[in-house]
Amino acid sequence: MVKTIYWENNVVMMLDQSRLPLEVVYVECRNYQTVAEGIKKLWIRGAPAIGIAAAMGIALGAQEIQAQNFDEFVEGLQPVFETIHATRPTAVNIHWAIERIKRFLADHKDERVDTLKRMLIEEGTRILEEDIAVNRKIGEYGAQFIRDGDTILTHCNAGSLATGGFGTATAAMYVAHEQGKRIQVFADETRPVNQGARLTSWELMQAGIPVTLITDNSAGAIMKRGLIDLAIVGTDRTTRNGDVANKIGTYTVAVMCREHGIPFYVAAPLSSIDFTLDSGDKIIIEERHPDEVRTIWGHQIAPHGVNVLNLAFDVTPSRYVTAFFTEKGAFRPRDLRRLGQEGVDIDAIRYVGAC
Amino acid sequence: MVKTIYWENNVVMMLDQSRLPLEVVYVECRNYQTVAEGIKKLWIRGAPAIGIAAAMGIALGAQEIQAQNFDEFVEGLQPVFETIHATRPTAVNIHWAIERIKRFLADHKDERVDTLKRMLIEEGTRILEEDIAVNRKIGEYGAQFIRDGDTILTHCNAGSLATGGFGTATAAMYVAHEQGKRIQVFADETRPVNQGARLTSWELMQAGIPVTLITDNSAGAIMKRGLIDLAIVGTDRTTRNGDVANKIGTYTVAVMCREHGIPFYVAAPLSSIDFTLDSGDKIIIEERHPDEVRTIWGHQIAPHGVNVLNLAFDVTPSRYVTAFFTEKGAFRPRDLRRLGQEGVDIDAIRYVGAC
Repeated sequence: MVKTIYWENNVVMMLDQSRLPLEVVYVECRNYQTVAEGIKKLWIRGAPAIGIAAAMGIALGAQEIQAQNFDEFVEGLQPVFETIHATRPTAVNIHWAIERIKRFLADHKDERVDTLKRMLIEEGTRILEEDIAVNRKIGEYGAQFIRDGDTILTHCNAGSLATGGFGTATAAMYVAHEQGKRIQVFADETRPVNQGARLTSWELMQAGIPVTLITDNSAGAIMKRGLIDLAIVGTDRTTRNGDVANKIGTYTVAVMCREHGIPFYVAAPLSSIDFTLDSGDKIIIEERHPDEVRTIWGHQIAPHGVNVLNLAFDVTPSRYVTAFFTEKGAFRPRDLRRLGQEGVDIDAIRYVGAC
Repeated sequence: MVKTIYWENNVVMMLDQSRLPLEVVYVECRNYQTVAEGIKKLWIRGAPAIGIAAAMGIALGAQEIQAQNFDEFVEGLQPVFETIHATRPTAVNIHWAIERIKRFLADHKDERVDTLKRMLIEEGTRILEEDIAVNRKIGEYGAQFIRDGDTILTHCNAGSLATGGFGTATAAMYVAHEQGKRIQVFADETRPVNQGARLTSWELMQAGIPVTLITDNSAGAIMKRGLIDLAIVGTDRTTRNGDVANKIGTYTVAVMCREHGIPFYVAAPLSSIDFTLDSGDKIIIEERHPDEVRTIWGHQIAPHGVNVLNLAFDVTPSRYVTAFFTEKGAFRPRDLRRLGQEGVDIDAIRYVGAC
């Protein structure tokens, strides 16, 4: 399986996904600023992957700090936290990674600065490994909803390339494929950055899963023909009521699924669920640069200077979601908030029993 | 206003729209084969425009025929009819233009061959002029549904560039703009051939109508924000029950409009309504070449050899259509079939009174 990001000899190796599928190039990030640039310029993308990148970026930044004691060290880390946080304001995983590192530091106040630097590297690698384990579980729960012969629609790339490995939306496909179920996938190309065309179709081809690339605007017509059995997408941020912020176009996929009676599933690792927000109305939607729409790989496809509204995300209300696939099981939207509560009997609220 | 196609000195001048908006190049078509190539390669597109091109192509073909009498002349035209017909199997306007020319010939059996050649040129030009007059009427009826301050969504290009001039879906916008209504337009980019990005946004900018370009997959999210007041699209072929074959993605726009309570209008010159078909289920949907999706202007944006399903059109069931704008008035879908019947009191079935 392709590695999206890994740590090697005090360097963060980051696959530059903006060059896929034609070139496979790893950028050697030697400082946290380069990691931040990679997050901002979409060399790395996908909620879990940028969480890992954030943690590894902080670990890189930590190595440069000259500090005599814990307080100086933490003070030195502040600009690192700020730079990493500012890269993608909507991304809950960056916030999550920073908070995890801060708690980790608070738990290790008594360590020497040199030890802390080493421990932050280990923590970054641990987040990567945990992510792969989480995705595997998401896939095992999700694959229960895939039958032999099913055709699955997906949008954007919530795949191996969006995570430490295995993917979130793709995890159920990979597990179903391993289980010998004959599945095929329709991949929305996902304008304007074409993650479906460049990444999802590429990684599914690598895995030997039959995949058909389609324009975003044809998914509805293909559903109407009866060619889609279920849809699975990822999420950048889901609120506790089950509203799903994800790549622009996800909302339309969800509405079209409802219109055609097709189940719509969201693969959501718990790290992507923001239990502090009660609804998606509170999520600020990032607007990205007009040139993402006006040009493709430097080639102008629209009039110079044409006005553009380029929304990065949309919010799908929970009523369109059939179930969430998480590492703790699959859950109905109405049960999602209970995952954030203490002492909940998870077995009792799972949509389908444990696997 | 930009001319899409015109006749000049025994040459059909055809604007090569595949090069817009960066280059304005007219192809000099000196024979019918070049006209057919232009229709097939989308130098010219849009239902009315290709009807005009078909008629002018036939007129060009006619000039080359060596015939002693009417029967030989008509026999010589058969390969011209066949070549023109084979360019775009879904396009009712090509069929319509061929039938009109055949009837015209049948009505002028007694003319000399030289006279017939000249008359076919005149007939091609007449079809162009009639088209512009028709569009003007469509615009006058349609503009009644546009209020001062409205924001209109459109998909693909049913504009001046798709017709002899003035457009069909855009006609109501141009008339409303002339009437001093302050309107703005959101234009779907319309993958895979990007007619919205390349053509609609360009021609509206030329006309001084504020236009915002968006990806197809963001129209739903923009509706959800309350930014769209109505949608107007064109049609390549509408059946007598009001089912609308139009550019892929139209069906999804219609469903999303219904979901958000937004009126969805179809600008349909009578020549695009196929009264011989009772429903859209009978329409054969053309599949176009995978490279339209895999590449943009020769630049590969997806893995080499990835499987693609590239539907050229979809069919929107009549229940999603609020009204049709035609040159005879605006009509509810249920009243459309009556337009094809003899002796109907059109004033009685108009959705909004005559203008």
